[in-house]
Amino acid sequence: MKLVDDLRAGQVPALARAITLVENGASISEAILDEIHPHAGRAYRIGVTGPPGAGKSTLVGVLAQNFASSGSVPGNGAVGIIAVDPSSPFTGGALLGDRIRMMEAAAHDDVFIRSMASRGALGGIARTTQEVADVMDAAGKDPIIMETVGAGQAEVDVARAADTTLVVLSPESGDSIQAMKAGIMEIADVYVLNKADREGAGRLAIEIESMLDFRLARSTWRPPVMKTVARDGKGIDELAEAIGAHRTHLRSSGEFTEHRRLRLKRRIGAIVTQAIEARFLSAGERVEELVDEVMKGAESPRRAAERILKEVSR
Amino acid sequence: MKLVDDLRAGQVPALARAITLVENGASISEAILDEIHPHAGRAYRIGVTGPPGAGKSTLVGVLAQNFASSGSVPGNGAVGIIAVDPSSPFTGGALLGDRIRMMEAAAHDDVFIRSMASRGALGGIARTTQEVADVMDAAGKDPIIMETVGAGQAEVDVARAADTTLVVLSPESGDSIQAMKAGIMEIADVYVLNKADREGAGRLAIEIESMLDFRLARSTWRPPVMKTVARDGKGIDELAEAIGAHRTHLRSSGEFTEHRRLRLKRRIGAIVTQAIEARFLSAGERVEELVDEVMKGAESPRRAAERILKEVSR
Repeated sequence: MKLVDDLRAGQVPALARAITLVENGASISEAILDEIHPHAGRAYRIGVTGPPGAGKSTLVGVLAQNFASSGSVPGNGAVGIIAVDPSSPFTGGALLGDRIRMMEAAAHDDVFIRSMASRGALGGIARTTQEVADVMDAAGKDPIIMETVGAGQAEVDVARAADTTLVVLSPESGDSIQAMKAGIMEIADVYVLNKADREGAGRLAIEIESMLDFRLARSTWRPPVMKTVARDGKGIDELAEAIGAHRTHLRSSGEFTEHRRLRLKRRIGAIVTQAIEARFLSAGERVEELVDEVMKGAESPRRAAERILKEVSR
Repeated sequence: MKLVDDLRAGQVPALARAITLVENGASISEAILDEIHPHAGRAYRIGVTGPPGAGKSTLVGVLAQNFASSGSVPGNGAVGIIAVDPSSPFTGGALLGDRIRMMEAAAHDDVFIRSMASRGALGGIARTTQEVADVMDAAGKDPIIMETVGAGQAEVDVARAADTTLVVLSPESGDSIQAMKAGIMEIADVYVLNKADREGAGRLAIEIESMLDFRLARSTWRPPVMKTVARDGKGIDELAEAIGAHRTHLRSSGEFTEHRRLRLKRRIGAIVTQAIEARFLSAGERVEELVDEVMKGAESPRRAAERILKEVSR
């Protein structure tokens, strides 16, 4: 398809349009994704998450600039960034504009930034983000950084759909312990202690390290705790090196392929589940009848589910 | 079955054992749930969530005591409480002990408290919590309070599986805005501003009210913001009244049945999805073959999902 040929040739408008189609779940998006797939496994993918206010957007901006200017960008000369907006009905997309401006201010020209609203993402934000990353990947963007705010399951799912996952914390956010509870601490390959010039940075670093001491190791990789001051560009070279070291570890340990395989499997599983959910929703009237029976106490939820399963599986 | 007869007759050991069986997903749990279902729609269900440190456990304890002593407990003379533990591998279950102690200290004898670890809950914590609530319901516990910590999707799912959902905040937690972003603000039927004697309570109340002004109303019910000092028992009568008012609103507007129906549908949908996921996982070798093809670029994730879907649906 011409659109795919064009974006693979490095044409930015074609890339932007393909992303929009994929993001909106346009009917042509499936054909785009199928055609792109064989060309979409080259880019190194970096996931970034952490509590709001930790300075992730600025960090992503300067990190992208670092990658771009260090000549470590192999593709069409650009780093790809996907910024996912939590889009609460309260905040609307108000935050996103600020974040994009922060990234743009910090980043090099050779950085392709794309924002995405999580609300209304058909098939879930983690799926859509990975599909958009595939499109960027096929267009030669490398590395691709996927940034998301918050500690919800959706955010965690986005951030872990990466080769290297950064969890960004700041001493002042006071969220360290909470973030841990919400499970985002477990997905970090590299901890970034941003705003490390502020009070409490030392204490937070010790806190993280001591938790790591107690963690059951699932890998021989121990996540390093990198201190940065993103606004002043401090610690960014070292952070880029830590990401590089994790990449080397993945390659030499064989975890690289294993991780990618697992990710792919999880992704396929999610598509299967979503397809079933869509069938469940479209079973409409029949589902309503069964819900009525459950309401009346004539059927248990489990038995109703069994019956629906038999019917939608046909 | 004797176990079900015994728990319905108010025998506490039978109730405790049935809950354990259901929580562990024992093979007999399906039979228990099927038999219990016709007797499990009577109790009023209250969901409680909010950021850690807001004082939820203490609040739940005194609220339960209030229900028990005001004679508003129609069943076997006891309020049921389910405390869901986020159980991060870092914190272990350490928090839970404290929370249970807080509830027990605050609560009346006529309060049946049960804790549940979210980790390892087969089929998801929201499903298991609702099933445990069904067991308590059939045993005559009424109302049933389901308490969970945090703002993750799982916590939100637990808290909203209720007739009335309380979102508890405290002025000092400084999490108000973050909590909103994470989406827990949208599920509140009643806001509880706990530790209302501390600095910043007035400001937080104004913040919540002004957000409510901007919210798209999905109901004629406007969530009230109730101030409490749970530790001193202050504001608890008023909170119980606000819950009562919401209950009256649900009944008179017809939303009560509509909500329960929607909840049931969501619950059945989740069981259907989980059953499909289980089949996906058990399809084992075939799934691995397809993942390999996707890794080689021979198939796109979407096409692989389609093929699996056809095969597991048979």
